[in-house]
Amino acid sequence: RTLRIGLIPGDGIGREVIPAGRRILEALPSSLKLNFSFADLDAGFETFRQTGAALPERTVEILKKECDGALFGAVSSPTTPTKGYSSPIVALRKRLDLYANVRPVKSVASAVSPIDLVIVRENTEDLYVKEEKTYDTPQGKVAEAIKRISERASSRIATMAGEIALRRQRVRDSTGSGGAAKKSMVTITHKSNVLSQTDGLFRSTARQVLSQPQYKDVEIEEQIVDSMVYKLFRQPSDYDVIVAPNLYGDILSDGAAALVGSLGLVPSANVGDGFAIGEPCHGSAPDIQGKGIANPIATLRSVALMLEFLGEEKAAAKIYEAVDGNLEEGKLLSPDMGGSAKTDEVVEDILKRL
Amino acid sequence: RTLRIGLIPGDGIGREVIPAGRRILEALPSSLKLNFSFADLDAGFETFRQTGAALPERTVEILKKECDGALFGAVSSPTTPTKGYSSPIVALRKRLDLYANVRPVKSVASAVSPIDLVIVRENTEDLYVKEEKTYDTPQGKVAEAIKRISERASSRIATMAGEIALRRQRVRDSTGSGGAAKKSMVTITHKSNVLSQTDGLFRSTARQVLSQPQYKDVEIEEQIVDSMVYKLFRQPSDYDVIVAPNLYGDILSDGAAALVGSLGLVPSANVGDGFAIGEPCHGSAPDIQGKGIANPIATLRSVALMLEFLGEEKAAAKIYEAVDGNLEEGKLLSPDMGGSAKTDEVVEDILKRL
Ligand SMILES: CC(C)[C@H](C(=O)O)[C@@H](O)C(=O)O
Ligand SMILES: CC(C)[C@H](C(=O)O)[C@@H](O)C(=O)O
Repeated sequence: RTLRIGLIPGDGIGREVIPAGRRILEALPSSLKLNFSFADLDAGFETFRQTGAALPERTVEILKKECDGALFGAVSSPTTPTKGYSSPIVALRKRLDLYANVRPVKSVASAVSPIDLVIVRENTEDLYVKEEKTYDTPQGKVAEAIKRISERASSRIATMAGEIALRRQRVRDSTGSGGAAKKSMVTITHKSNVLSQTDGLFRSTARQVLSQPQYKDVEIEEQIVDSMVYKLFRQPSDYDVIVAPNLYGDILSDGAAALVGSLGLVPSANVGDGFAIGEPCHGSAPDIQGKGIANPIATLRSVALMLEFLGEEKAAAKIYEAVDGNLEEGKLLSPDMGGSAKTDEVVEDILKRL
Repeated sequence: RTLRIGLIPGDGIGREVIPAGRRILEALPSSLKLNFSFADLDAGFETFRQTGAALPERTVEILKKECDGALFGAVSSPTTPTKGYSSPIVALRKRLDLYANVRPVKSVASAVSPIDLVIVRENTEDLYVKEEKTYDTPQGKVAEAIKRISERASSRIATMAGEIALRRQRVRDSTGSGGAAKKSMVTITHKSNVLSQTDGLFRSTARQVLSQPQYKDVEIEEQIVDSMVYKLFRQPSDYDVIVAPNLYGDILSDGAAALVGSLGLVPSANVGDGFAIGEPCHGSAPDIQGKGIANPIATLRSVALMLEFLGEEKAAAKIYEAVDGNLEEGKLLSPDMGGSAKTDEVVEDILKRL
């Protein structure tokens, strides 16, 4: 099977980690019978400065017409309000209808209280519809934004969460991992005590979906978002799958990343029907850009996650194992992990373990 | 001076901790020349069930006409959507124009990396305007909520944050605490990379306010909300004052509470011009209600915070010291802190230290 992968490095360290993603795809063992071809694509603030568009039409077209999946690095946000600029990753998620953002957060196996959870974030609506307006009043300016929650989007993200919970259970059953039988659970996160209609709709729709017979072995739990953040920090090992509207999911995944030591470890995939874009959770990190010390692991894991959603679970497993090997040994770590290895050295070490 | 204080226990453990708040006010040394009278007031889900209103008009009227300040316990949210029910504390904040929610989060002095920050949360707008609607489409229901941010509210909350930063600096200067000269800093939290108009307005207004000459010794910093949660967990001792729109402030304060061990320790005050309501950050905790084991410290600190905003800094300091004494000794702690003391035992111990 040949897969064509779009490469969208974006800005800052995106340009240092996406090449690492390409390298690991090219280094996959030939026994997997997978071949890759690549399309280099532009997006980001630099692209905006040069062309006036943060997400060129060409990028969207090639992804749609030619590619099976893609890797997205990171983009810099302008530090002062910039007319006409708008986040290309947010636009891409909408244009390709990548309705789920999946963010697994996992500590190394030897951790004292091991964390192994996944945040399933709705990726197309909520405040990210970006319908805003500003008006003048006698007391000054007032701005409004729409938070939109639909039954349709809530239903498909809850389905994704349920399926992921089942898949994780299958993996635990088959590998005997998870120790004392961690139970399958989906935690629905919302703020329906204040937003009874919008978050109320998310909550009731998700409950309904997860109450279907195929999910009978998946426990349904709920947390108000503020309490979820609290619990995430106090008892992270209690959680399995967390499903949330777009903005809460954004916030929770950074919180979860802090728990495992570094944003530089946490991958994500933007998933739609038949398409997936892997994306490290970290940003463009202007402070370390150009130094060659960015942690490539979030990207390498994002490559694996993308492959999983493209149906290539074996290839994904190879990458996860190689990364875990590097982390467990703990000899070649990038500075965010307290080490002193360069991006390339970490990549080499992981490629050797494939 | 005689102060009249409204007591609104609400539901669950609210009824166990608010009496503790009353007791500490009555136990303040007479040298402070402060007297208190109390008005018992209703609000909450139980009140809603009995009267059809979660926040009776009488409660609002008495607070407005008779009281100088108040203590609010906690309210239970209905577990299933309940027509006509709406959070009384959210309503109260609006009705009394208590535009700031101030939440200091402080670890005990002997902590390894001491945390001493305060979250200043806008308390009247954002998604808490609760303007929602639901409509049907061929694909199912869609619900929308308005997020509203005004220049006026952003300006006054930024002013509050600036004043609190200055006040904290004065306290540090006069007590020599804070060790190696912790700098005054206000961190503006927002998500203007997505919400350029609403959060953009919050950001630019706050920047403008804090750039005024009176705040020249206060450093201005910014964090995108997801990154703020990450940093809060990784480097909490870097922060001094964090100012945020309503919803982010809600989420951040629960996150910060997790850092110091228990929500049962964290106080808040809802502050307007000339009025303050102390409110523990924890909820009604139905799981432990009636057992007499709720941690009273969040409430006792909320009493102190209320007194501070009513201009009684000396009385406030007495309470803080007594609470710190209890925590530093660590002998009489409630179960959330790993101890086995009852609410009353913790209160007695703290009263003795006054
Ligand atoms: C860059 C930003 C628009 C984006 C988001 O909020 O979705 C980022 O934080 C993420 O999580 O991918
Ligand atoms: C109970 C709820 C409406 C409230 C809020 O969201 O403001 C609570 O979480 C708080 O922080 O005081």
